[in-house]
Amino acid sequence: MEITVIKIGGNIIDNPAALPQFLDVFTRYPGKKILVHGGGNMATEMAAQLGIPTRMHQGRRITSPEMLKIAVMVYAGWINKQIVAKLQQRGCPAIGLSGADANLIPAHKRPVGNIDYGEVGDIYPNEVNTGVISILLFKDLVPVVCSITHDVQGRLLNTNADTIASTLAVALAPFYHTRLVYCFEQKGVLSNAQDPDSVIPLITRKSYGVLKEDGVVSDGMIPKLDTAYQALEQGVKEVYIKHALHLGDSMGSLLIL
Amino acid sequence: MEITVIKIGGNIIDNPAALPQFLDVFTRYPGKKILVHGGGNMATEMAAQLGIPTRMHQGRRITSPEMLKIAVMVYAGWINKQIVAKLQQRGCPAIGLSGADANLIPAHKRPVGNIDYGEVGDIYPNEVNTGVISILLFKDLVPVVCSITHDVQGRLLNTNADTIASTLAVALAPFYHTRLVYCFEQKGVLSNAQDPDSVIPLITRKSYGVLKEDGVVSDGMIPKLDTAYQALEQGVKEVYIKHALHLGDSMGSLLIL
Repeated sequence: MEITVIKIGGNIIDNPAALPQFLDVFTRYPGKKILVHGGGNMATEMAAQLGIPTRMHQGRRITSPEMLKIAVMVYAGWINKQIVAKLQQRGCPAIGLSGADANLIPAHKRPVGNIDYGEVGDIYPNEVNTGVISILLFKDLVPVVCSITHDVQGRLLNTNADTIASTLAVALAPFYHTRLVYCFEQKGVLSNAQDPDSVIPLITRKSYGVLKEDGVVSDGMIPKLDTAYQALEQGVKEVYIKHALHLGDSMGSLLIL
Repeated sequence: MEITVIKIGGNIIDNPAALPQFLDVFTRYPGKKILVHGGGNMATEMAAQLGIPTRMHQGRRITSPEMLKIAVMVYAGWINKQIVAKLQQRGCPAIGLSGADANLIPAHKRPVGNIDYGEVGDIYPNEVNTGVISILLFKDLVPVVCSITHDVQGRLLNTNADTIASTLAVALAPFYHTRLVYCFEQKGVLSNAQDPDSVIPLITRKSYGVLKEDGVVSDGMIPKLDTAYQALEQGVKEVYIKHALHLGDSMGSLLIL
């Protein structure tokens, strides 16, 4: 059996024209599937409205207790339930979940090193509750997972949505043919950053090495592709990097080992 | 098989000392169970912080679109996930749900009569998804349901938590021995409003009539007891009105036909 884990980010969530289009394509996407979403800009906007400062370190958010509360409200509350309701409208039997629900994604608060990232959860990958995901999928439900985890000690934690998507895909890989789709602002990995149509259709680990050496893939793309290759090394069969609205067609980059 | 639907309100949710105590008692409560919760004061406080006016009509909230957003964030987000995380901490395998998740509770926007209550949902009682509840309960999960429904057209709606609890109990009654527990500020229905220990242990429909005639039960209690008797007439076997912290013992009022 095949399972596809599809991750969307702010460029879809924050775009009132793109979100319904994506949900149409997602509903039609064949086979067992899981949607993972982050939170977009709403949490930052809400924090600003409430006078809660957004603190960042090298582009990563520091999650204060006040910010966590907002993240839970926005990600697990408004965004998750909006997506679920709009999928139900389309006949897609969605069920919204955080990592705390059914103990889906146990995590621990990230240890304080040079930087205290605050209420941020690092996942215990071997403890993902694949049993409950299997039950839901076999009952033809479509899990919609937000980027909130918990420490099984009563504490909710903020976790990167890309990491949640790859961890779920890796955890399911021993049992199913598992595919991971990272939806992206571009149509795929580009051979020329100036040309949005210069999508590299197929990347292998070897060609990825060359792309890095040649500087074709740089900066922000490297962590994403590194995560993708880690997932492939841990049993995920294929990783796609593509635009959300091209979920249903062949446009995009396919990454294999 | 027996199922108990337990509803808690603001007096537990808003009380940082009482909530953990209740969750201890709830975790130990035997058999299949469902927790239904409202939102307490947090939504009102949040609305005030954001400058959104809280409009009421005869003690009932009017749910503007802005207020609905807050209700979804607070009820389905922070409160639901807090409760789920704290139950998981106690070894209780909770799974948080709104009425949109798995199309659990289809509803329709209340028609505008003399008053427009706004984004408020009246449930279609015959369309409650008892199948998915049964699957979750048989897999030993404990549903934690917040007071948000949806219209299956993509719209989330605010619905009274007492109504959600009784509707779930009634919908499950044809399949299971179903019990409904309304947790209350008092220890039960009191024979003397001045004496918090004057709990009436057993109320039948006949004795309820007498209590109403004699003015022992009045005002705010009447809608609650009327809802309870409607549930009993529709197949729920027992309704308890008791204090949340007495969930596990015999203190409280038992209502039967």
